[in-house]
Amino acid sequence: MDRAKFILDEEDMPTAWYNIQADLPEPLPPLLHPATKEPTILPPPLFVEALNEQEFSTERWIDVPEEVQEIYRTWRPTILHRAHRLEKALDTPAKIFYKYEGTSQGGSHKPNTAVAQAYYNKQAGVKRIATETGAGQWGSALSMGCMFFGLELKVYMVRISYNQKPYRRILMETWGATCVASPSEDTNIGRTILGQDPDSPGSLGMAISEAVEDAATHDDTRYSLGSVLNHVLLHNTVNGLETKKLMEEQADTYPDIIVGCVGGGSNFAGMFLPFVKDKIDGTRPDLRIICVEPTSCPTLTKGPLAWDFGDVAGMAPIAFMNTLGHGFIPPPVHAGGLRYHGMAPIICHLRKLGLIEATAVPQMATFEAGVTFARSEGILSAPETNHAIRVTIDEALKCKQTGESKTILLAHSGHGHFDLAAYDAYLSGKLEDYDYPEEKVKEALASLPQVDR
Amino acid sequence: MDRAKFILDEEDMPTAWYNIQADLPEPLPPLLHPATKEPTILPPPLFVEALNEQEFSTERWIDVPEEVQEIYRTWRPTILHRAHRLEKALDTPAKIFYKYEGTSQGGSHKPNTAVAQAYYNKQAGVKRIATETGAGQWGSALSMGCMFFGLELKVYMVRISYNQKPYRRILMETWGATCVASPSEDTNIGRTILGQDPDSPGSLGMAISEAVEDAATHDDTRYSLGSVLNHVLLHNTVNGLETKKLMEEQADTYPDIIVGCVGGGSNFAGMFLPFVKDKIDGTRPDLRIICVEPTSCPTLTKGPLAWDFGDVAGMAPIAFMNTLGHGFIPPPVHAGGLRYHGMAPIICHLRKLGLIEATAVPQMATFEAGVTFARSEGILSAPETNHAIRVTIDEALKCKQTGESKTILLAHSGHGHFDLAAYDAYLSGKLEDYDYPEEKVKEALASLPQVDR
Repeated sequence: MDRAKFILDEEDMPTAWYNIQADLPEPLPPLLHPATKEPTILPPPLFVEALNEQEFSTERWIDVPEEVQEIYRTWRPTILHRAHRLEKALDTPAKIFYKYEGTSQGGSHKPNTAVAQAYYNKQAGVKRIATETGAGQWGSALSMGCMFFGLELKVYMVRISYNQKPYRRILMETWGATCVASPSEDTNIGRTILGQDPDSPGSLGMAISEAVEDAATHDDTRYSLGSVLNHVLLHNTVNGLETKKLMEEQADTYPDIIVGCVGGGSNFAGMFLPFVKDKIDGTRPDLRIICVEPTSCPTLTKGPLAWDFGDVAGMAPIAFMNTLGHGFIPPPVHAGGLRYHGMAPIICHLRKLGLIEATAVPQMATFEAGVTFARSEGILSAPETNHAIRVTIDEALKCKQTGESKTILLAHSGHGHFDLAAYDAYLSGKLEDYDYPEEKVKEALASLPQVDR
Repeated sequence: MDRAKFILDEEDMPTAWYNIQADLPEPLPPLLHPATKEPTILPPPLFVEALNEQEFSTERWIDVPEEVQEIYRTWRPTILHRAHRLEKALDTPAKIFYKYEGTSQGGSHKPNTAVAQAYYNKQAGVKRIATETGAGQWGSALSMGCMFFGLELKVYMVRISYNQKPYRRILMETWGATCVASPSEDTNIGRTILGQDPDSPGSLGMAISEAVEDAATHDDTRYSLGSVLNHVLLHNTVNGLETKKLMEEQADTYPDIIVGCVGGGSNFAGMFLPFVKDKIDGTRPDLRIICVEPTSCPTLTKGPLAWDFGDVAGMAPIAFMNTLGHGFIPPPVHAGGLRYHGMAPIICHLRKLGLIEATAVPQMATFEAGVTFARSEGILSAPETNHAIRVTIDEALKCKQTGESKTILLAHSGHGHFDLAAYDAYLSGKLEDYDYPEEKVKEALASLPQVDR
C-alpha cells in the first residue's frame, strides 16, 4: 500500500503568500467607487493600509509575518491524504488526493485569512473589529483570529441563524467575541429595520450594513471580510503552496485535475492559485481546474460577467465579476457558504481567460457524495465541501469508464460537525433540490449598476 | 521559538500494542462469573476468542494487524503539540505538551479500539455487533469502526440523550449504523420496561441489558464495550507509544508529569501504560502519573477497592476495582464519559501498587480551564478533557510559584464540537457544581456482591 498521508515539516512551511497578480496575462479590472463609479481603493475607514496594499500589489511573493506564521503553526501545515478507500469504493483507477483544512481550530480554511487580518489590524493600532456572519463560519474563524491577537470582536449574525444554529455562536463566545442577532438595537440601521419590523429574520445584506456602520462610526474599529477580496485569496494561498510542495516533493506526482467548491472563492483560489501559475507559464498546459457551485446559486455557470456591487445594499465597491445580481437572494441550501450572488474577481478573470472552468451540481447529489466519502474515508464533510466531492467522484468514475489513471486533487475545505441537521434531513428523505430560480435572477440582473467602461 | 508540533512518519508508527500485563510486579486479580463467583473469561456468546485471548494475555507486544494499521493511517499518527501559547498565558516556566486525539474522524481516542474490535469480529465471521451508548461517543466511534469493515451495527442509545442530543445519533447513521432509543421495542427487556413505564427516559444500565440481550439472542451478533476491559486499554496504547517516541526522539525530552482524565480509563491508560513501564523497571522513578476524575463521581479518590459488577444490572463479570457501587447513578455532569461507577482494573491495580495517583476536580473549574485552553491554544475541548486540562494548568501554576521548569504531558482525548451547549451554560452563568453524593454512594456500596476471596 502506498502512503496514506503527506505532511510538511514545520521548517518547510511557506513563509510567503503567492500573489497571482504578478503573473496574470492581463491585469485585473479596478474596483469602482459605488457612488462615483471611478476606480477606488478599499474604504480606509473600513480597511487598514496594509490590507489595501496587498489588495492591489503586483509583487509575486508577500512575506507571512513571523507572528502569523507562529499562529499558523498551531494547526498548519495540514495533511494531504491519499483517498485509497474512496478509490476502492468507486473501483476507479484514478488516484484521488485531498488536502483537509478541517483540522484548524475553526474547522475550515477560513482561519488562514482571519489570523492574517487580525494581525494587520493589530499592527495598525486597531483595537476592535466588526464583521457580519451568516451561519457563523466566518464569525467563528475571525473570533479565533482576534482571540490570538487580543482584539475585541463584534459579530452581527443573521437573526434566523442566531436563533436556529446556536453552535457557532457559542464557539465565538468561547473564544471571547461578542455576537448579536442582526438586525440589532446596536446600530442606526438595525434600529430602523426593527422599527419597521420587530420580527425581522435578518439577512446577510442587513448584517453587512450593521457591521460597516459599526466600523465607520467607531474610531478604534475596522471592518473585515472573509472572502471575495484579493487579499483574502492571497492569505489562503498558504494552503495551495503547502499542497504543491507535498504533491511534487513527497507524493512525486502532479494533479491532472483540481476540484474545489466556490462561494466567494477564497477556499478554492487558495488551493489552485499556486498551480494555475504553471498553466499560465505553459509548464502544465493540460491541467484542469474545476470550480463547483450549487445549481441553485450558479454564479459562474449562469451569471454574466458584469459590474456589480459586492453587497446587497449597494454600499460596497463595484467589482467586475460574474454575478446573479446583488439583489438576488439564493434558495436556502445547506451550503450557506456558497450562497453569494457574486464571485471573487480573480476567479472570474481567470475563467474569462480560459485558465479555469466551472460546473454546477444539485444539493441532493452533493449529500449523496458526502455520505459516500464519510463511508469510505470516515470524514464527515461540510455541505460546501460536498459539492467538490461530488465532482471529484464524477471525474473518478469517468476514469473507471475510460481506464485512465488520472490524478485528482480535491480541496477539502472543512468538516461538517455543525451541519449534522442537514445530514439528518438527507438520510431521512427530507432533503430537497431547488430549481434554478431563473425569474428571480432575471429580475436581480435588471438592477445592475450602470457603468460606462 | 521551539517547534510547535511533532508528528511521526507513517513508517515509524507502532506496529504492536503494548501489553502491561507482561510487566506488572504482581498479576491482575481475575474476573469472576456474576453467578458462580469463580474466575471466568469474557462470555463467549458476547466476545470473540481473539479479544478474550488479548484480555488475559501476558505477552508484552501484540501485533497490530496490517488491516487495522491501514485504517489507523486514515487519521493516525496524531500530533504532539507544544502548548507555547498556554504557557505564555499562564506565565509559567513549565513546558506543556499535549497529544491531541480529536483529529480522528470520530473526534476522540475511541476509534483506536473501535477499529480493532470491528476487525477481530469480522475475522471471526461475525456479521453484526450490538452495543450501547450514553451521549453517543462510543456509539459513533464503533459506527466508524464497523463502517470500515463492512459490519452491521445496532446501537442502543439512552432515550433521554437520543432525544436531547441528536448530533451523535446522526453521525452514527451517516456511517451506516442503526441507532434506536433505549428502552426499545426491539428486545424483551426493553418491552418489559416500556410495559411498566412507556415514558422511561432510559439509563446506561438498561441500554447495556438491551445490547447484551441482542447479542446473546442473535447467532451472527457479538457485543462490544468501549472502555474498562484490558483489551480496550491495550488497543489504546497505540497513542502512548506514538507519544513516547515523539517525546524522546523528536522533542528530546521526557515528561515529569503525565495528566489525563479517567471515566472507564481507556483514554488515559492508552497514554500512560508505555510510560509506567519505565517506572516499574526503575528507569524513571520520579515520573508522576495523575488520573483526574470529577468530584461528583470520584471512583478512585473516594471509592474502595472491592469486588463489584461491571454493569448496573449485575449481569456482567465481577471485577476487583475501585467502585462507588454498581447501583450508583452519578449526577448529570456534562462529562458523560466520566460518569461510571467503576474503573478499569488495570488502573486500580497500578494505583494500589503506588505507580499512579488520582485527584478529583469540580465541574465549574474544569470549564474555566477549558475556556483558558480555547483562548490560548484555540482548541475547544471535550468536557472530559477539560478535567485533565484543569490539573495541567494547576501543575503549571505550581511551577510558576516554585520556578521549576517541569515538563507536563497532557493526554488530550478529543474535541467538544458536540458539547457546545455545556460551554453555553458555563459562559452564561448557568452551569453548576454538584456536591459529592456521599449518602447515595454509601447506599450503593451496601449492595456490593459478596465474594470470599
